[in-house]
Amino acid sequence: MNKILIFGVGLIGGSLALNAKNTAFASHIVGVGRNQDNLDDAIKLKLIDRISDDLEKDIADSHIIVIATPVAQFPSILKTIQPHLASHTIITDVGSTKTEVMKSAKEILGVQYSQFIGGHPIAGSEKHGAISADIDLFKNKNVILTPDETTSPHARETIESLWKNAGAVVSNMSHTEHDKIFSTISHLPHLLAFSLVDMITHRSNANELLKFAASGFKDFTRIAASSPEMWKDITLDNKQFILEDIQHFENEIKLLKEAIQHEDTKKIFALFENASKTRNKWSQ
Amino acid sequence: MNKILIFGVGLIGGSLALNAKNTAFASHIVGVGRNQDNLDDAIKLKLIDRISDDLEKDIADSHIIVIATPVAQFPSILKTIQPHLASHTIITDVGSTKTEVMKSAKEILGVQYSQFIGGHPIAGSEKHGAISADIDLFKNKNVILTPDETTSPHARETIESLWKNAGAVVSNMSHTEHDKIFSTISHLPHLLAFSLVDMITHRSNANELLKFAASGFKDFTRIAASSPEMWKDITLDNKQFILEDIQHFENEIKLLKEAIQHEDTKKIFALFENASKTRNKWSQ
Repeated sequence: MNKILIFGVGLIGGSLALNAKNTAFASHIVGVGRNQDNLDDAIKLKLIDRISDDLEKDIADSHIIVIATPVAQFPSILKTIQPHLASHTIITDVGSTKTEVMKSAKEILGVQYSQFIGGHPIAGSEKHGAISADIDLFKNKNVILTPDETTSPHARETIESLWKNAGAVVSNMSHTEHDKIFSTISHLPHLLAFSLVDMITHRSNANELLKFAASGFKDFTRIAASSPEMWKDITLDNKQFILEDIQHFENEIKLLKEAIQHEDTKKIFALFENASKTRNKWSQ
Repeated sequence: MNKILIFGVGLIGGSLALNAKNTAFASHIVGVGRNQDNLDDAIKLKLIDRISDDLEKDIADSHIIVIATPVAQFPSILKTIQPHLASHTIITDVGSTKTEVMKSAKEILGVQYSQFIGGHPIAGSEKHGAISADIDLFKNKNVILTPDETTSPHARETIESLWKNAGAVVSNMSHTEHDKIFSTISHLPHLLAFSLVDMITHRSNANELLKFAASGFKDFTRIAASSPEMWKDITLDNKQFILEDIQHFENEIKLLKEAIQHEDTKKIFALFENASKTRNKWSQ
């Protein structure tokens, strides 16, 4: 019965489409995007039934609209949707930041803002594009929804069932709490990984450095292979929390640097031991 | 024909022992260590033929002595070896830093310093102990040897053949060059990963942060599970280069922070794109 319209049929949008279609959660899936080659891949891989050729109509008669593009495009997409939005349609997104998205949706959708609920599947990867779509991408993964006091119960239920159907574990929290948490555990590590690789490329012996870099470097910098466009958007969107976390990390590094300068063996060991114990105990 | 004596039968020492024994490079392998349980594991897993019960004799009649303990123990081990060292015996180590080790060996071994050659197999892991030993650990991995003008050709040939026999790709460079390179591509990332995990443990919502941390965080922090003792030693041994690299990284982060503060989209994108392109092109 469900018709789903997906803006941005990349890794996340494509995987969700593939899952919703193959589990019969959706009867009809339509894709929209800027990149024709990627949309052609999505058709070939049967992620979507068709590419939208009448966007106004597809907006008007969809049950669910999923915005799965880089976050900077959300405002213009919401403006495209708004004039044609039926009262029964639920809109969600899959962006890695939530405060700015909720603000845009509120401003642009006006009285229909109750039909919007922010979402964030914690199932990213450095891979991108429709060709990376995976039907099991969300299985046992966390998906965070960020409803507020305006969000309709129907919106909450619809999007919760969309994700549960894909095998995800759904949690609800405020957009502020979300952005604060992900600044620390996701955005900051990405910036550190990008920065380390960038730093190395500016060395005169960059090639030799990369030649001898091994498995530790490989894993540490895997996220530095992520989409620059997506991460530029996330960084600007979540600017305040990210700047706070960079500051905290700078303080942490400064303390370690001083401990090394003073050869404070006990302090260095205590820091490493605390991190090592925590990381060894932690399992995803 | 070869008898090998190994100080420290952990991941590296144990894997080298297992390989040398099973390929018949060594006819007899003897282990020494501080941890009796670990040595018992090494015997059970047939990594070594026996635990040394007469260290003076085992030192005197070994063809190769491998020091594979944390680097802080090297001076006292070299002092134990020196009085009993025969003229035909070659000594090497597997430490992650080379300048301090070469200095110690020169001081302690005196005229017999020509029998020592520093080595570093680039095949670490966050795993440790004899139980993690893997016969193929060094296959197609880089091993760096750091001979100097004193090193005997026999020492170079012997240790090169030991590693080539284990499937490794052997390179030679100066201890200074080695320590400078590994500060950047290995030691700095370890310190950053330890620091991020340590920072998170001090947050009041540490458990919630770790609950939502996902695959990017998992890979980025894998090296934070490494041995605190080993990394405390490496950090102090390679203090100068590490402090320089921390300084460079602080500068890099400062520039990114300023770009974010000024919402300098172009600069942020350029940095991310440069890192992403480099990391995508790089393969180990």
